[in-house]
Amino acid sequence: MAPPATRGHFSVVRLADAWFVACTSGELRQRPIARVIQGTPLVLFRDRDGRPCALLDRCPHRNVPLSLGALRDGQLECAYHGWRFDGTGTCRAIPGLCGPAEGKGRRAPSYACIEQQGYVWVYASPDTTPARAPWRIACADDARYTTVRRMFRVAGTVHAVIENALDVPHTAFLHGGLFRTAEKKNEIEVVVRRFGDHVEAEYLGEPAPRGLAGRVLAPKGGVVQHFDRFHLPSIAEVEYRLGDDSHLIVTSLCTPVSDFETMLYAVVTFRLPVPHWLLCPFLTPVATHIFRQDARILAQQTATVRRFGGEQYVSTEIDVLGPQILRLLLQAQRGERPPPDAPVDVHRVRMRT
Amino acid sequence: MAPPATRGHFSVVRLADAWFVACTSGELRQRPIARVIQGTPLVLFRDRDGRPCALLDRCPHRNVPLSLGALRDGQLECAYHGWRFDGTGTCRAIPGLCGPAEGKGRRAPSYACIEQQGYVWVYASPDTTPARAPWRIACADDARYTTVRRMFRVAGTVHAVIENALDVPHTAFLHGGLFRTAEKKNEIEVVVRRFGDHVEAEYLGEPAPRGLAGRVLAPKGGVVQHFDRFHLPSIAEVEYRLGDDSHLIVTSLCTPVSDFETMLYAVVTFRLPVPHWLLCPFLTPVATHIFRQDARILAQQTATVRRFGGEQYVSTEIDVLGPQILRLLLQAQRGERPPPDAPVDVHRVRMRT
Amino acid sequence: MAPPATRGHFSVVRLADAWFVACTSGELRQRPIARVIQGTPLVLFRDRDGRPCALLDRCPHRNVPLSLGALRDGQLECAYHGWRFDGTGTCRAIPGLCGPAEGKGRRAPSYACIEQQGYVWVYASPDTTPARAPWRIACADDARYTTVRRMFRVAGTVHAVIENALDVPHTAFLHGGLFRTAEKKNEIEVVVRRFGDHVEAEYLGEPAPRGLAGRVLAPKGGVVQHFDRFHLPSIAEVEYRLGDDSHLIVTSLCTPVSDFETMLYAVVTFRLPVPHWLLCPFLTPVATHIFRQDARILAQQTATVRRFGGEQYVSTEIDVLGPQILRLLLQAQRGERPPPDAPVDVHRVRMRT
Repeated sequence: MAPPATRGHFSVVRLADAWFVACTSGELRQRPIARVIQGTPLVLFRDRDGRPCALLDRCPHRNVPLSLGALRDGQLECAYHGWRFDGTGTCRAIPGLCGPAEGKGRRAPSYACIEQQGYVWVYASPDTTPARAPWRIACADDARYTTVRRMFRVAGTVHAVIENALDVPHTAFLHGGLFRTAEKKNEIEVVVRRFGDHVEAEYLGEPAPRGLAGRVLAPKGGVVQHFDRFHLPSIAEVEYRLGDDSHLIVTSLCTPVSDFETMLYAVVTFRLPVPHWLLCPFLTPVATHIFRQDARILAQQTATVRRFGGEQYVSTEIDVLGPQILRLLLQAQRGERPPPDAPVDVHRVRMRT
Repeated sequence: MAPPATRGHFSVVRLADAWFVACTSGELRQRPIARVIQGTPLVLFRDRDGRPCALLDRCPHRNVPLSLGALRDGQLECAYHGWRFDGTGTCRAIPGLCGPAEGKGRRAPSYACIEQQGYVWVYASPDTTPARAPWRIACADDARYTTVRRMFRVAGTVHAVIENALDVPHTAFLHGGLFRTAEKKNEIEVVVRRFGDHVEAEYLGEPAPRGLAGRVLAPKGGVVQHFDRFHLPSIAEVEYRLGDDSHLIVTSLCTPVSDFETMLYAVVTFRLPVPHWLLCPFLTPVATHIFRQDARILAQQTATVRRFGGEQYVSTEIDVLGPQILRLLLQAQRGERPPPDAPVDVHRVRMRT
Repeated sequence: MAPPATRGHFSVVRLADAWFVACTSGELRQRPIARVIQGTPLVLFRDRDGRPCALLDRCPHRNVPLSLGALRDGQLECAYHGWRFDGTGTCRAIPGLCGPAEGKGRRAPSYACIEQQGYVWVYASPDTTPARAPWRIACADDARYTTVRRMFRVAGTVHAVIENALDVPHTAFLHGGLFRTAEKKNEIEVVVRRFGDHVEAEYLGEPAPRGLAGRVLAPKGGVVQHFDRFHLPSIAEVEYRLGDDSHLIVTSLCTPVSDFETMLYAVVTFRLPVPHWLLCPFLTPVATHIFRQDARILAQQTATVRRFGGEQYVSTEIDVLGPQILRLLLQAQRGERPPPDAPVDVHRVRMRT
């Protein structure tokens, strides 16, 4: 009575041509810090001009983590023998050696870095100049919007985490009471549009909130607009509009730490017809509570999948985005690049909510 | 100087056609509980009529453990998306889905359950109607007997645990002082009888207790009768009679949790010519002490066997049951079924005690 | 973005013909103790005459660790069934058995033991009479010298630990401030001499300490003599002389516990023109601090090497001994035995210090 043989697989994907958030701008200050992306240990530090740099976190000399070292004039000095590396990974000093320090075998592989909107992004492949820029978070630079940021370490593949972030049916159960109620009276329509590098679900016919909440959020009335989107390599975006005045975007920037561990950098950006200083004390703990509930269930899912040796999922038509996300991820892993914005597939689904 | 190459093997056996205790009746109440048998995670719950049910502990939808869920009218509701399963594993509700919930791919494998003598037994193979019933504990239903129950989690294979439970020579050492003394004066005879599905050792010539203990336990005198028995799949039974009045049976119901972990449900059933309420305060802590000493030594044995990559046992003729138990277990694993009660082999051994 | 493929290897070496320190004389008293050498669990105990004995730490009967047992008249009694073994591993008693206890299959493999200079040495191969004797610590038996001993458990291969113990360039960084300063003004010469079973680096031209330290350590003046030596199987020796009066030897006796774990028995032996009782309160904490710093960096190195699946070292000419030590270890592992004292190779290196 071993567990029944599993026909499944693991939704583990490793991408070479991709930007991931390595840390927040605030985490990277005067000292080098260690991060792991897709199983690769990296050391991040700022050069003399304050620009972020990322090297493989292993001294080429005796394989000690460079992140144990110290910064000297914007160069990283290994804690064991004092070898020094600049932001490009070139060795600049070897204490005790009579000849020159530089040498091809003495380089530490380096990874392209971009600091943008409060995050330090690192490119997945070493010693490469990326052709594209990292994702830009919608409305985060717009002064009319308020932005709240949190980060969560989740035991799950990037695919599992993003499917969860964009999944509507689980909200009534896992977050029961906070969102939709368990009684499902409304039948709505979902339009799913897949493109070369992203997929989007549009929910048509969701009822506007009633009572006090409705009067506050949409004083002039109006219809609900709701989009859930996945963008390669690992961005989940939930967008709500209610009339002209209410607009809310939840962006989840997901970084695969290892095959079954994901850092989720959550950004909530909103503009609402209520003073934002009044909302934040309520909205932030609720959002944190939701992310934690999701993190807990994802950890249980991951443990079960690993225990059984693979995923054995049964999907129905209301699992609108999960299978599409995996398809895009596997396509990116194979290195395929369809034109990003050409629609590849559109279909419609009915769902009770 | 790696550990010397081991010629050994692991006494790990996995049985498809077998009943195992999953939990006590008292452990299974209003909420689903998780148990593992032979490495397979199971969820147990009671249906609307209070009957125990067991399903594979993995939602077929997104592979979350069903044991995280809640009971609704005797059906088990997954905590993630609210899929509901009845006691046969059939899916009865999928919140949000417009069509019917039932569907072959949406079933959770189910395992036959029987509640009997205070234990919930589960059959090892899913979606099967067993031809036989679980073991019945001797005298546990007889009103003249007192029954004491305990459970122990032991780090050892079922074979190692049962060999220990039925092993006479270790008692003088491991439980020194409680049982036989280290000075071995008596030479007794052991008759070992193997049958199709069990093996028994009868100890002939064991001296009756002397002094006060003898007068209390057998006021009219009488000889000691002592049997140790192993019954497939995993039952150990030690039976003592002293004259007409004293009768004691220790039954160990062993459940393989995983290859090297066994739950031992111990049942001591006895009828003695002393008020039972007087005995229990003494007998129970002594029995618990013995089981704990055994659990400790078994954990050390298991760690050593795993460290060396296999068992490398040297047996003597006074290891009367261990090799016979393994032979029966391996035969059962191969699916062989000799007639249960026909004697297959009888031999005699002399032992000092 | 898995870690970049590593061209490396692990510097793990297992030697059959080698003596290793198993414990200090003081650790082995009235009770058996458990030790692991090169992955092999051993039990050590003293026989009736107080001589140390070592057996494989596994009872041949039911594979329980013999180190759980007790000593009876210089014989080791297993805690499970009471089988008794003498110092040669022969079984001398089996409680309950009517016939004789002795028997070939009932032996526990035994390992040659020698107690010398406060340490119990064990030979790596069982049931063998070694042709050679263990290493003798220089000057430890000379009454004019003071000896201080410590032990450290280090997460690293024997090779990594010994390279570290004999490495000069790291001292200015890892132990910065204690030893040489980071400013490297002096250019010195190193002569490296490899022999059949050892390798030595002699440092020529190291400046004598100036100021008070110089006047105290070498009141009559004199030159610094400094040798670093590795002796097979696993001995590191650092020797300093300053004039006629100051002489210091640091011997590191390294025992491979498992592939990536090493016990380092450190012995500092010295004769200095200052009262030794005055020095010890200063010297001991400094030496302990240095060994701990090394242990910390070695643990980080080992974790990184294992994480990347192998060592990928880049050496320069000032890594004078590391590659030579590995060459000797691998040669010993292959069973090759060049004449021990014939010089095999000599070369010279310049180094700033």
